[in-house]
Parts: sequence; structure tokens; C-alpha cells
Amino acid sequence: MEKVKIKEATVVYIEKPKLRNPVLIEGLPGVGNVGKLAAEHLIDEIKAKKFAEIYSNDFPPQVFVNADGTIKLVKNELYYKRTRKGKDMIILTGDFQGMSPRGQYILAEAVLDIAEEMGVDMIYTLGGYGIGMEVEKPRVIGAATHPEIVEELKKHGVIFKGEEGGGIIGASGLLLGIGMLRGFKGACLMGETSGYIVDPNSARQVIKVLTELLGIKISFARLDEKAEEVKRITDRIKSLEKSLIEKEKKEDLRYIG
Amino acid sequence: MEKVKIKEATVVYIEKPKLRNPVLIEGLPGVGNVGKLAAEHLIDEIKAKKFAEIYSNDFPPQVFVNADGTIKLVKNELYYKRTRKGKDMIILTGDFQGMSPRGQYILAEAVLDIAEEMGVDMIYTLGGYGIGMEVEKPRVIGAATHPEIVEELKKHGVIFKGEEGGGIIGASGLLLGIGMLRGFKGACLMGETSGYIVDPNSARQVIKVLTELLGIKISFARLDEKAEEVKRITDRIKSLEKSLIEKEKKEDLRYIG
Amino acid sequence: MEKVKIKEATVVYIEKPKLRNPVLIEGLPGVGNVGKLAAEHLIDEIKAKKFAEIYSNDFPPQVFVNADGTIKLVKNELYYKRTRKGKDMIILTGDFQGMSPRGQYILAEAVLDIAEEMGVDMIYTLGGYGIGMEVEKPRVIGAATHPEIVEELKKHGVIFKGEEGGGIIGASGLLLGIGMLRGFKGACLMGETSGYIVDPNSARQVIKVLTELLGIKISFARLDEKAEEVKRITDRIKSLEKSLIEKEKKEDLRYIG
Amino acid sequence: MEKVKIKEATVVYIEKPKLRNPVLIEGLPGVGNVGKLAAEHLIDEIKAKKFAEIYSNDFPPQVFVNADGTIKLVKNELYYKRTRKGKDMIILTGDFQGMSPRGQYILAEAVLDIAEEMGVDMIYTLGGYGIGMEVEKPRVIGAATHPEIVEELKKHGVIFKGEEGGGIIGASGLLLGIGMLRGFKGACLMGETSGYIVDPNSARQVIKVLTELLGIKISFARLDEKAEEVKRITDRIKSLEKSLIEKEKKEDLRYIG
Repeated sequence: MEKVKIKEATVVYIEKPKLRNPVLIEGLPGVGNVGKLAAEHLIDEIKAKKFAEIYSNDFPPQVFVNADGTIKLVKNELYYKRTRKGKDMIILTGDFQGMSPRGQYILAEAVLDIAEEMGVDMIYTLGGYGIGMEVEKPRVIGAATHPEIVEELKKHGVIFKGEEGGGIIGASGLLLGIGMLRGFKGACLMGETSGYIVDPNSARQVIKVLTELLGIKISFARLDEKAEEVKRITDRIKSLEKSLIEKEKKEDLRYIG
Repeated sequence: MEKVKIKEATVVYIEKPKLRNPVLIEGLPGVGNVGKLAAEHLIDEIKAKKFAEIYSNDFPPQVFVNADGTIKLVKNELYYKRTRKGKDMIILTGDFQGMSPRGQYILAEAVLDIAEEMGVDMIYTLGGYGIGMEVEKPRVIGAATHPEIVEELKKHGVIFKGEEGGGIIGASGLLLGIGMLRGFKGACLMGETSGYIVDPNSARQVIKVLTELLGIKISFARLDEKAEEVKRITDRIKSLEKSLIEKEKKEDLRYIG
Repeated sequence: MEKVKIKEATVVYIEKPKLRNPVLIEGLPGVGNVGKLAAEHLIDEIKAKKFAEIYSNDFPPQVFVNADGTIKLVKNELYYKRTRKGKDMIILTGDFQGMSPRGQYILAEAVLDIAEEMGVDMIYTLGGYGIGMEVEKPRVIGAATHPEIVEELKKHGVIFKGEEGGGIIGASGLLLGIGMLRGFKGACLMGETSGYIVDPNSARQVIKVLTELLGIKISFARLDEKAEEVKRITDRIKSLEKSLIEKEKKEDLRYIG
Repeated sequence: MEKVKIKEATVVYIEKPKLRNPVLIEGLPGVGNVGKLAAEHLIDEIKAKKFAEIYSNDFPPQVFVNADGTIKLVKNELYYKRTRKGKDMIILTGDFQGMSPRGQYILAEAVLDIAEEMGVDMIYTLGGYGIGMEVEKPRVIGAATHPEIVEELKKHGVIFKGEEGGGIIGASGLLLGIGMLRGFKGACLMGETSGYIVDPNSARQVIKVLTELLGIKISFARLDEKAEEVKRITDRIKSLEKSLIEKEKKEDLRYIG
């Protein structure tokens, strides 16, 4: 690898695959980590291959330590997958989003540059839609660059609020917003989530809609396992809280008695 | 639309209208949202036409969702209106002001570049003047680039504090302050407002003075409607507060009785 | 005036005076506003003349309103004064210091560029030294670029703490610290001050040492007036506090009695 | 010294020593100040010589005052030491790390540029590993760029957590993370420390492992003295706290008695 100078967005290619009409799918850390969970699950299930890394001096200045004691600089990653029928896929995921507005814009534009070069015309951005309370059956909320995509998404059960003024913050919004100005089409799929905890169950709903839209089938087993693990942990916390409250009640009674 | 790279101030033209001696009118979000309300009301009433959009990587990295489910990248907008007699108009409004001092300066200079190119020599900036309490009949407070403009504004009932040291923060101040260095004349019209709530009533006073200065007549009906709606909401809150206080008083009496 | 683009440090000259061996004196806003008060008093008393303004997009994005209703963009200012015997003077004062570290460095370097061009070799920076309590007879604390200047200052009653590790933050520190790397000599004169209130009395002590060092004589009458005014205000506050406490005591007694 | 313009990383050379295969050792301020204490102790003991200073407009805009009243601009410093057998050494220490992510990345790259030019291929970064409580016998926690270095370090008693996901923030992480991308090998040695106080005892453990790895011997006497001084201070605080608690207990008894 050559001498790398890390700017707001420095792309390091591992390979430059030729793809047919690929769609770009983005899932970066955010509300409930829904987008990142969804993107990672997709990458694992379709066995997508990493072809580029993006470093940025707008990411936190740090490395992560792997289980074997080696380190890795924080980054975003781009994967691809060729499909027999239908469109090929590019998937963006990573450790962080840019920390400043400026960095966010520059990173989004760097991704759009890659997308343009590789022939992408449709972008799906994935994220969480925080509603501030637990949700058993998360719906998928949508937004899109063009009215005809809104109509298409509605057919797949995606919900549109029909109100003016909501906002989509970060890469999921910017890739579509800047993308529109550059001629891309796209949609944002947001799984309802409490916003308090990582939410594999919400990610499952998002990825379910996405795979339907893309006409592919994948297993959700691993995401279901993660969802169950999170449920076990939250249930344990709730049960602990309950027994604590009951203990306190008993002690209160003792004082009275 | 071509490949857009969004810098601190990236201007995208829809058209480049030829105007006669236009005045520039600025109304961006700020105290009581007075400036933005005033600018938007003017745009609606005189049926001004959008001719340019300004994007900035110093705006928050986000999109807004429209009522129909489509999205739009946050931006500022420039409108124009040709008039039969008197001067043509350019009106600047938008979703946000720059988030950093640097971005604010660069955005103001980009607007002044456009103003210069289009032959503007007079700038009116509109805003709110926070006084920390409700005000029934908001006065319009002024500031200007030249003493003769101060005199002119006084004739239209604009109030000048006559004290050293007040400050005008953001675009309303910078467009005049930097503008002066570049040979523009200008004035800032600030409607008194509590600063706690959006204030269409204050915006009405500002736009009333402005239209007098420009020698045009517009309807204030829609602004009056908005003001009444805000009044209905604040009255309801006050009445709720009052009944809460009275309920508490009664309960206190019960304890005594 | 030409088309000005405001960068981190944009110098606009009114004139470019030829000076003999000038010293640079800096007094910008800071602890107790001591430096700015001292510099402004000196400018007034010696009738120094403004020759340049410095604008910066690292200053707050705002204008000030003058007593006559006109506005001025926030800035720093450079004044000069020719003297018959001894050295000419350049004085730097202004509305703000840079808001970011980067801006502070760039502004300091811009001032040093001007100083170099005008033949300055000695720099005096003026400031306050916060001690967290009222001080009746503020001493002047010093720091300097070279040991021989330390010795010289001691002869004029300037105090040196003799401890490692204190810091001088902002322009007063940077002009000397960066200045040293570029071959300037210099000293920082800091008047002791509570740090809670503007302190003309502390500024008086600083300017007294400075004028001794420069071999000039000025009146302190206006600074003494300001000091008395500040004293009147703080005395009134103290007396109000005292009567409040006594009133409370009496009321307490009533309850007991 | 020539006219210096201070950018994010401005290197000023005092000399450019020719070194044989040097290793780079970094110890900058951080958790428990462990890295800086270790680097400074090493510099003192092996009598390393300063060859370069790094200034940055991402360091705080300030100077420090020396005991003799002279000042110095905040900076990082590079030292070198030639050894008879084995590898020469370059040691990086300083007053601050960069304040922004961007500054941190640029400073790390500037250091790597120097390292590359001087023929470094192995980097040791030193730091503290905060565990939130006092630790009598601090262990040294490790991370490395390559699995074979992990194995090598284990032989010297360095602990590897064996868990995914820990992070190393700042220069100690970035020099290795960016270094890897540029072909450097390296390891981070982190001494366990409470994180509440400067910790010479932890620095001792780190420097002990490092000198073993480098095959050199140094005295730890001065570091032991510092550790004892810190212990005396913390013991005094603890004893004061204890007597305060006991005094309170007695007073409580008096009320009851």
C-alpha cells in the first residue's frame, strides 16, 4: 500500500470490480444502530466482498483492538456482490460517521463519486426511526427522492408519515439529498426503534423490505439470534428492576408494621 | 443539473434574471423567526420567483421530508420580483444560517457576490429584537450603514436606541457589516419580540415598515391569521396554567380547613 | 475600499506610515479587560492614529451598533504614534480575540507580519492576571522572551513568580511565543485583578510600568475616573448586600422574639 | 531561525541526525500522564538529544512561563540517541496532543513522515490504561500492528485482553493505525492506572517492558522518587479524609450523648 495522506475522505481501493447497474446500500452507525446491523447482516448473508476502505480525519482519532491483540484504524468499508439476475450490489458500512457537518458532506460526496464511477443509479439508505418507547412490531418508515419511488415503497408496506418537516440526519439523509442534485434516485428505509438500545429486531424489518425490493432471499436466523440475545438482556434488567421495587415495598411495610 | 460539490457556499442557479436596480431583502431563521416569517410572507404575497439555491457544508448535514414523502437537502433560497415602478427585488430566505463563524462569513460574502453581480446597492435585513417578555404592539428597531439612512428610517417610525454597544448577530448583521466594506448601503429592521415563540405579529410590523420604504402594498391577512393562531395557542397554555394554579390553591385550602 | 474577502486574518490598510524603530503594544479583550483598557487609554492620551483594521472569520459573526444608529463590523485595530525622542509606537486593540486555536495562531502571525514589515523588534503585550479576589494595590506580573528583559523589568518593579508552569493564553502569549521563533524580543505585563469585573485600576498599574519603560509621560486622570466609577458601582452592590443581610437577621430575631 | 508559519504540524529542525535503523518511541500527555512520564524518564536517563520541535495551530494558543520568567510556545519535541549495539532511538514527547480530530491525524502523519525519512520501521507508543481504581502492581496491556509482535510482547509479560472492541485514542493509537497503512510495524504499551492522578509507578512498568524489548538498561531511581512523592501526597489526603470522617462521627455521638 502506498503512502496514504488521510483527508476528510481518503478512499483506498483493494480492487475495482466491474459491476452491472449496481444499487448502493448504506448502513452506518446511528439510532439503534439499525442501519449498521442491517448492512452487516446483508454483507454476511450474501457473502459480499470488500473492495475499498474510506479513512477520514473527521472520524475520531483512534484505533480499535481486535480479539487477537492487533489493531485497526477506524474507517468505513465498501463491499460488492454480483448477482445472476437483477442488479449487482455495493454496500457501505463502517465504524463511524463524520463528526462535523463539513466532514459529513465531504464523506457523502466521496461515496457518491464512487457510486457514479461504478454506474449506480439507485441508492438505499438504512437507519433507525427513534420513537422513544419499546416497539414490538417495528414498522418501516420511508422517504425518497422521487414521488414514483414513494408509490413503489408503499406497495411493500413502507409507511409514509404524510407530514411536512421531519428530518433525516447524517449519511442516510445526505447521500439522498446531495445524490438528488447529482441525478441519483434513492430511498431511505427507517425501522422504528426505541432509540435506547441496539435493535436487531428493527434491522430485521428494514432488511426484509430491502430484500423484497431487490428481489433476493436471505436467512434472518443470525439477526433473530441477536434480537433474542438483546431481549434476554433487557428482560433480565426489567426483572431485576421489578424485584428491586418489590424489595423496597416490603421494607417500607416493615417500617409501618 | 451538473455535478455539484458543496463547499461553504455553493450557489446553484435556476435562472439568471436581468433586474433593474434591485434591492436585496434578507430574512433567515433567528430570534422569534421574525426575519424568515417576514421574508416568506413577502415572497408569497408578491409572487416572487426562485432563481437560485445555496447549499453549504456549514449547514446541518440533513434533509427534510416533504408531506408527499420526498426529501430536500437543507438550503437557502433566492427569489426575485420585477416591479413596474421603483426598484426590483431579490429576497433571501432559507432553512438555516451557517453553524460556524467561518461559515457565516463565507455565506454572507457569497450572497454579496450575487448582489454585486445583479446590481444591488441597497440591502434590507430583517430580524427579531428579543426583549424577554411579551409585547402587544412590537416596535421596529433599526440600525443602518449610513447616518442618512438612519434619518430616513426615523421618518417611517423606526426606533433607534441611541446607545453604544448593541450587537446584531448572524446574517442580518454580517450582510450589512461586510457589505459596508464593499460599498453597499443597507439597513436592519428588527421587530420587538419575546424571543420565546415564533412571532408573526412582530414579522407583520417589520414587513409593514419595509413595504412602506419600498413603496409597495401587500395584504397582511395570512400573517394576521398566523398571529391569531399563535395567540390562540399561547392563550390556551396560559388558561391551563391558571386553572392549575387555582386547583393547587384549593387543595392547599383543604389541608388548612 | 476594494472588494474584501474576509479570511482568518484580513488586513485593510488606511495608510502605511513610515516609523522609526517602533515598539508593538498589544491590548485585546481578556481577564478583567485589563489589556484592552490599558491600550485604549494609551491611544487616547498620546492621540495615536489608526492606520489599519483586521477582520477575521474567526471573530463572532456580528456587528456592533453605534450610538448614532450606524453599524460597524467587529474587528481589531492598529494605531501608530511618532515620538520625538525614543521609539515610535504601534498599538493593537480590538473587539475580540480569535475564537478557535487556529484563528488565534493565524491572527498572531498576521500581526507579526505587519510588525516585521514596519521594523518592530520589541513587543509589549498587556493583560490581566486573575487572582480570584479583590486586590487594592495590584502588582504587575511579568514574563519575557529573554532573561535580560526579565532583569530590566525587575528594575521597574515587575514581579516574576519564579515558578515553572504558569501559562499565558491568547494573543498576549502567542505574539511573544511565535514572535520569539521569528526573532522578536518581547515582554508581557499582567496587572493583578480579581477577574470578576473590568478593572481600570489594574490597567493603570500596567500602563504606568509600560510608560516608564518607554520613557514617556501621560495623564492617568481618565483611567482614575473609570476606576472610581467601577468602585462606586461595586461599593453600592456591597452596601446593598450588607443591608439585605441585616434585614434578614432582624426578621430572624422577630421570629425568635 | 527563519520565518515560521505555524500550520497543523510545523516541524522545526535543530539538526538532522543520521541514525541506524532507529525505533520511534512516543509518550505524549494522556491517561495518568503515563506515556509522557515514561518518555521523559527515558530521555533523561539515556541523555537523548533534542533534534526537532513541532508546533501546531491545533495546540492550545498559549505559552508556558519558565522558572526564570522566560516563556516558551507550547510544542512537541523529538529527541534521538545513538546506541553502540542494537537500534538507535527517536523519542517523541511534548506539552499537548492536537485538540481536534483533524489536527490529531495531521500531527500523526507529520511524525510518520519524519520517521520514514529517518529509516524507522518499528514504533512503540506508550500510554496509560485507565481502570478506575487504584492499582498497586500495574500490569502492562498491549496492542500491536501484527500477530507476531503480539506473540513477542507476550514473552515479556505484556497482557492481551483477548476481547474485541477496545479502543486506543489519540497519538498512541493513530501512529500505529496510520503507520500500518504506510508499512510500519509497531506496538502500544499501556500501563494500568486509576486515571485519577499522574502515575509514575505505572510509567515505571511501561518503561521496564520497553527497555527489556530494546535490550538496554536504565536506572529507575528518579521515577521511583516521583512515585513515592505521589504516594506521600495521596496518603496525606487519605489520612486527612479519615480524620475528618472520625471527627464527624464523634460530633454525631455528642449530639446523641
